[in-house]
Amino acid sequence: MLRKDLSSLVEYISHSSLDIRRRERTGIIEAVYSEFKEAPVLLDIARALLRRKAPLFFTRVNPAKAEFLLNHLKGLLYVPEAQILYKPLRKRKKTGFVSVVSAGTSDRLYLEEACVTLDFLGNNFAKICDVGVAGVHRILPYIRILRKSRSVIVIAGMEGALPSLIGGIVNVPVIAVPSPVGYGISAGGFAALLGMLSSCSPNVCVVNIGNSFGAACVASLINHKRGG
Amino acid sequence: MLRKDLSSLVEYISHSSLDIRRRERTGIIEAVYSEFKEAPVLLDIARALLRRKAPLFFTRVNPAKAEFLLNHLKGLLYVPEAQILYKPLRKRKKTGFVSVVSAGTSDRLYLEEACVTLDFLGNNFAKICDVGVAGVHRILPYIRILRKSRSVIVIAGMEGALPSLIGGIVNVPVIAVPSPVGYGISAGGFAALLGMLSSCSPNVCVVNIGNSFGAACVASLINHKRGG
Amino acid sequence: MLRKDLSSLVEYISHSSLDIRRRERTGIIEAVYSEFKEAPVLLDIARALLRRKAPLFFTRVNPAKAEFLLNHLKGLLYVPEAQILYKPLRKRKKTGFVSVVSAGTSDRLYLEEACVTLDFLGNNFAKICDVGVAGVHRILPYIRILRKSRSVIVIAGMEGALPSLIGGIVNVPVIAVPSPVGYGISAGGFAALLGMLSSCSPNVCVVNIGNSFGAACVASLINHKRGG
Amino acid sequence: MLRKDLSSLVEYISHSSLDIRRRERTGIIEAVYSEFKEAPVLLDIARALLRRKAPLFFTRVNPAKAEFLLNHLKGLLYVPEAQILYKPLRKRKKTGFVSVVSAGTSDRLYLEEACVTLDFLGNNFAKICDVGVAGVHRILPYIRILRKSRSVIVIAGMEGALPSLIGGIVNVPVIAVPSPVGYGISAGGFAALLGMLSSCSPNVCVVNIGNSFGAACVASLINHKRGG
Amino acid sequence: MLRKDLSSLVEYISHSSLDIRRRERTGIIEAVYSEFKEAPVLLDIARALLRRKAPLFFTRVNPAKAEFLLNHLKGLLYVPEAQILYKPLRKRKKTGFVSVVSAGTSDRLYLEEACVTLDFLGNNFAKICDVGVAGVHRILPYIRILRKSRSVIVIAGMEGALPSLIGGIVNVPVIAVPSPVGYGISAGGFAALLGMLSSCSPNVCVVNIGNSFGAACVASLINHKRGG
Amino acid sequence: MLRKDLSSLVEYISHSSLDIRRRERTGIIEAVYSEFKEAPVLLDIARALLRRKAPLFFTRVNPAKAEFLLNHLKGLLYVPEAQILYKPLRKRKKTGFVSVVSAGTSDRLYLEEACVTLDFLGNNFAKICDVGVAGVHRILPYIRILRKSRSVIVIAGMEGALPSLIGGIVNVPVIAVPSPVGYGISAGGFAALLGMLSSCSPNVCVVNIGNSFGAACVASLINHKRGG
Amino acid sequence: MLRKDLSSLVEYISHSSLDIRRRERTGIIEAVYSEFKEAPVLLDIARALLRRKAPLFFTRVNPAKAEFLLNHLKGLLYVPEAQILYKPLRKRKKTGFVSVVSAGTSDRLYLEEACVTLDFLGNNFAKICDVGVAGVHRILPYIRILRKSRSVIVIAGMEGALPSLIGGIVNVPVIAVPSPVGYGISAGGFAALLGMLSSCSPNVCVVNIGNSFGAACVASLINHKRGG
Amino acid sequence: MLRKDLSSLVEYISHSSLDIRRRERTGIIEAVYSEFKEAPVLLDIARALLRRKAPLFFTRVNPAKAEFLLNHLKGLLYVPEAQILYKPLRKRKKTGFVSVVSAGTSDRLYLEEACVTLDFLGNNFAKICDVGVAGVHRILPYIRILRKSRSVIVIAGMEGALPSLIGGIVNVPVIAVPSPVGYGISAGGFAALLGMLSSCSPNVCVVNIGNSFGAACVASLINHKRGG
Repeated sequence: MLRKDLSSLVEYISHSSLDIRRRERTGIIEAVYSEFKEAPVLLDIARALLRRKAPLFFTRVNPAKAEFLLNHLKGLLYVPEAQILYKPLRKRKKTGFVSVVSAGTSDRLYLEEACVTLDFLGNNFAKICDVGVAGVHRILPYIRILRKSRSVIVIAGMEGALPSLIGGIVNVPVIAVPSPVGYGISAGGFAALLGMLSSCSPNVCVVNIGNSFGAACVASLINHKRGG
Repeated sequence: MLRKDLSSLVEYISHSSLDIRRRERTGIIEAVYSEFKEAPVLLDIARALLRRKAPLFFTRVNPAKAEFLLNHLKGLLYVPEAQILYKPLRKRKKTGFVSVVSAGTSDRLYLEEACVTLDFLGNNFAKICDVGVAGVHRILPYIRILRKSRSVIVIAGMEGALPSLIGGIVNVPVIAVPSPVGYGISAGGFAALLGMLSSCSPNVCVVNIGNSFGAACVASLINHKRGG
Repeated sequence: MLRKDLSSLVEYISHSSLDIRRRERTGIIEAVYSEFKEAPVLLDIARALLRRKAPLFFTRVNPAKAEFLLNHLKGLLYVPEAQILYKPLRKRKKTGFVSVVSAGTSDRLYLEEACVTLDFLGNNFAKICDVGVAGVHRILPYIRILRKSRSVIVIAGMEGALPSLIGGIVNVPVIAVPSPVGYGISAGGFAALLGMLSSCSPNVCVVNIGNSFGAACVASLINHKRGG
Repeated sequence: MLRKDLSSLVEYISHSSLDIRRRERTGIIEAVYSEFKEAPVLLDIARALLRRKAPLFFTRVNPAKAEFLLNHLKGLLYVPEAQILYKPLRKRKKTGFVSVVSAGTSDRLYLEEACVTLDFLGNNFAKICDVGVAGVHRILPYIRILRKSRSVIVIAGMEGALPSLIGGIVNVPVIAVPSPVGYGISAGGFAALLGMLSSCSPNVCVVNIGNSFGAACVASLINHKRGG
Repeated sequence: MLRKDLSSLVEYISHSSLDIRRRERTGIIEAVYSEFKEAPVLLDIARALLRRKAPLFFTRVNPAKAEFLLNHLKGLLYVPEAQILYKPLRKRKKTGFVSVVSAGTSDRLYLEEACVTLDFLGNNFAKICDVGVAGVHRILPYIRILRKSRSVIVIAGMEGALPSLIGGIVNVPVIAVPSPVGYGISAGGFAALLGMLSSCSPNVCVVNIGNSFGAACVASLINHKRGG
Repeated sequence: MLRKDLSSLVEYISHSSLDIRRRERTGIIEAVYSEFKEAPVLLDIARALLRRKAPLFFTRVNPAKAEFLLNHLKGLLYVPEAQILYKPLRKRKKTGFVSVVSAGTSDRLYLEEACVTLDFLGNNFAKICDVGVAGVHRILPYIRILRKSRSVIVIAGMEGALPSLIGGIVNVPVIAVPSPVGYGISAGGFAALLGMLSSCSPNVCVVNIGNSFGAACVASLINHKRGG
Repeated sequence: MLRKDLSSLVEYISHSSLDIRRRERTGIIEAVYSEFKEAPVLLDIARALLRRKAPLFFTRVNPAKAEFLLNHLKGLLYVPEAQILYKPLRKRKKTGFVSVVSAGTSDRLYLEEACVTLDFLGNNFAKICDVGVAGVHRILPYIRILRKSRSVIVIAGMEGALPSLIGGIVNVPVIAVPSPVGYGISAGGFAALLGMLSSCSPNVCVVNIGNSFGAACVASLINHKRGG
Repeated sequence: MLRKDLSSLVEYISHSSLDIRRRERTGIIEAVYSEFKEAPVLLDIARALLRRKAPLFFTRVNPAKAEFLLNHLKGLLYVPEAQILYKPLRKRKKTGFVSVVSAGTSDRLYLEEACVTLDFLGNNFAKICDVGVAGVHRILPYIRILRKSRSVIVIAGMEGALPSLIGGIVNVPVIAVPSPVGYGISAGGFAALLGMLSSCSPNVCVVNIGNSFGAACVASLINHKRGG
């Protein structure tokens, strides 16, 4: 197959090969992880996406890069708490319902990233923050909400114990996101990751440290039922 | 609350506190991981479960322990390829459809564990084996099946690359199971686990090394839709 | 100082220097960790201790070594569930009260090691087993007992989340013992250790994986109040 | 239970769920670990705590955040050596006696954090600094003080050997705090943590690297005797 | 042998012993890895090499060091995308053909380093970027080019799965370069390295994380056939 | 594409999908890594390969499995020093020349595995054993042979330093194989792997610990020149 | 140089290249680490060494291999506690004086290996066992001996703290040997190794886990003064 | 013993307990590792040492701290290449002879630290730089010097292979210093440390990464013969 034959699927620019139709194929748009890309490179990518009328959703955009891009392009929106820059989609009906839970106040960035992604992908959600296991009664008022969810995203750093606990009280998948919040042996989220992977609750699955975007994608795919 | 008040939920025996009603609460029966429990302990647990007419599903039962239990109890079934011993449930309608894919022949135990669990929990499934990335064309005849699935469980050892690849061609959640198959730096499944957690495909979530039981539980919960 | 001058404190035999008076100095007898010592070496040590009328308390004694020692010496007691061999002390009044909690049935050896040690060191205790976080309601009937304890020893493998949870509901020190119970990424107890060290509950302190003996010593020292 | 029902226990603000009554339940106030929280977030939390007349004790507050908070709030005290910001409590009688020992001059932050916390929680203490094992005679003048303590907190980086040594000469619990002081293989305190967990002295228990706050909490709970 | 006797092979300056004739011996010039050397040290080395008319090829030269060197020396060229500073060689015929493939846009520095090195060492090459496994069809238009290569260099971060896939479709050596591009568990390129070393494709060999220079050297030696 | 369409390329049996034509596609036969496969499974695979007249080459076959297979099948050859079982090919002309070097006597299995593989794949080779860096003069008589090689495979355990040294004296690629020979910190070959990946000699590339088969494949592909 | 030219230095046999004159060159005989070599291979090596009248010193020889070798060869001596098999040298004057200290009874194998090696290499030594830091007074009677030593070898597992302590009281080099004695986080000797490398006592240097042979070689070279 | 009784040995100041007579006891002055100490703390320590006429030798002093100290105190000397600040001793006769060898130009700081320390402690030494294994002939002119040394200090980053090589050609102790010079898997010096600990040359002992000060202390103690 020649490059030309793929031109409806891929936009080849000097440094990138953009997967324009990923949403049709996998149900999820091609998001651009921006941490390791310089602002001009991001601008090239953004322009190519806009030219192709493809969805634009950039994660981990720090304020300086966001400002640069907003200065050069129109119609984009930046959510600093979530470090996400995107082009809003036309209104459409939301589907399903997801609870997004964080164990501590320090997990905020990861909580917001999950929520903005869920919203962009067309899902209803509830945000529940700072209800970690050291004061477990704080989660009590939310149990009814948790039980109404189609899946639950749980974000936690330190020992990462909250997904196990919630896994034991809901009858839907729990998608655990280790957050890189911790110090000493817990620095970087590795202890939380290990704890979540080791969970005794069999309804817990796990994504990479800080990968709230991925967790929201999995939750959205569960909501937007496909296949048998 | 006193022990008595919980007696409809928990069966307290000398060395165990059996969570009799876990299925009602979490949608998943309490399976017993048998690797670290001696045969007489397993027998005690089995008798208590049978007495309470609770589901009985033991994983990682080696042949010696299985023989011991089969000699003492009636009506149980042992699947040696999956190392699972269980009491069959009455026939009921299966729901949903899951593809279970393994990268290599050596992943067999983990493939079978997932399939037996899916069956026990009331799901339809297809088994696809030995289609790893070093000869990627082997998966071609199965693509239609993959695309009809409600979710895909992918089991792989060594570099664990297959979930990323499959994640790029299906529009449903991919539940990745690292298998402890490998040598040198890949021994024990740690390299596969890292590869899966690092996946660029955002629809991939991961469970512990060898935790096919957990993967099947998550897939089953996706099939048996609950919540909003 | 010459060897002679120390002879009331130390018993020097060919391969060992026995700290005969450790109990007077540190409040804890010198226990002998037997895993890496061959049976004849253990016998030499046992004879020297008996000759000096020092306390005899051997941990991690497997059944074969125990049989060898029981065949050569009189008046010793072996507890196989705890892998402890000891010479019973004269009856004395017990002090304080400790709860010893295990997360799973597989933690049994470590649960029993803690209990036998507490008993030998003169403490009252309660044994609570198999109440891990995946079915957290199982601990409810024991909350009154936990709250009456002078400290709580919590033993858990896998994700090691139970100490955090208990730490949030009691107002005494929680001594966490990671157990080497787990598979995949949790094998050997390392994930549990990390989780416990990372606990958000500030009343949790931790000992080495499987070191129930140490946990019982700390609990006993808390019970037998000394110092200011 | 509804959110309203918990309002005497928890203060829910936009990004946090404050555990107002933690001291009544666990004997320890809810301290706020400030490293990952931005100054405005800390200000919100501080105002909510003051509004509820709950104790205010913030750890790991760097000078810039401290200045911001002191500019906006009255009646707070900042101890820069300990990086702690708190609202002083009314005078009350101190209980018990704890020795706080550091192995090196570089451990100062962790030494001071332990001391300020002990003071806030109502304990008497002695501060002993720079007496590591490379010049062990430096500890000799303090042995009487150590022996009068109800427990000993020992802070060390590098090889973390001091708790083992002190554990061999006192008959009370030793709470070991690895400090992130070291270079090369000792960087970050991991070597010290391993050494302390591996201690041959059975009266040693350990907390996370740099968690002097936790060590002081455990020591305080030992002093303020509760339970059986 | 005395220093003098080696003077045709080695240039000894105050802080360095320059291997002037390495190209004759090993087929590869002595490149200078500049990351840990200060600008004045690099200047000394550059002057010594120019004096001896030896090849000059500095890698990992950041812009500030490059500017310093370009200000002091004539006839050098700096390629900022590749962080390489070198003295161009006289035109000579290129040999062989290598494909250089990157999995993502963020791998750019490593892609360019490989290409500049291949060019300097006298090789033809093709550059193929951003064709990672999450959208595997993007590589289709390049398959003919890959199959015409004498070897393929594949650069990837995150899960590092691309070399396995390409290894399964070409019949030449694949030289895999893990790139330090990733976050969470993938940070620093360790997960990619493990994945590549664990590859099921037996034609894959691996170099250090980020060592595109080494990969290009191996590819060049394959092109410039020597030996039996 | 349907399964039928692939039937000339893949042989699907119950537990495996055999890549019959891998040699045509990648230049290397599909070898079967036998360590994790039970003897009956290996027999099924062997029979399917023989039926399809595909090459048969099984690595890591222990003596018991070899005996089982030799009892059931004709025309196979077993080399116990290399743990390889294969069906000899018809005589054909050998190509190229490879030196295979081991650092110590204990690396024998890995040395023989490389040599048998090279022979099967149609390459000339020389075997040089036990010439590690602690007695570097032992390699002197072989330098002429090394310099005549098209590539050099170097196998080493412990510190893995030999590839760096040989890399500095030859002008062809060095393919380094860490061997799992070592004790203490060197156990399992991890230290050797790190040393080889860290090599200062830029002509060194590395394969997984113990992967002599892969190293021989890369060397063979270099010998059997293909592409541009 | 040809193989023949080296024949006075090296004995080339089928699987080994014996460094016959290593003692002349490095002051230390070529010892044979026997763990990974099978008995017939060891026998070949032994015969070649005896034929060349080179010293014979085999370490880590288990009883079965020792019996095999003793059955085939005359004039050898086996020390089971040290797992060393050697051919005794003619009596010669011993030089220097070394203290060999172990922290625990379980370190016996490593203690004996050091002592037999020191003896074979012509050194006086004292053996001091079981004087670890948990009961530090046990070392008091030996301080005069320690201070008369030309160097001190200290063997310890668990936290490995003894070398730091001894390093602070002697004015000669301390050669620390981590022993693979420990459980949980200390298993395999890694924690002891880290502790010793992190020592605050600047006269401590370290060898591999269990490498008592190496420690004895360094001590012997210090005793047998050479160079400037 | 009271504090007063130790006053001739220890200088207790507010944050430090200075081991004034360490040189008399251990042969080495108490050096102050300055990296984690703030400038005013270093000034307090310096003043106390000068008051007691004790030796003053500060390592890892960055230029800013050095300037601060030189501004407040007289008679000190700062060597920026070695990051050492010290008070020169009166001239005295040097003893012994040590070769200090570095593998690369980037190891300069560690080379200079060793040399300044050796000089301060009264030793003769030779400095040999940039002679790593990738161009091993560069060491040839220095072999006579190496053979005249009483011990050899070898500093290397990356794969850390140089000590093994030098260990094979000298008959004195080799003290290996891993340097934190490397990238990718070699970053921080861990690969070099592992390589050195794994050395096949039995005369190699190792210190912490970057601990040239410790290596120089051990070499000096070997030179200044004490004990038996």
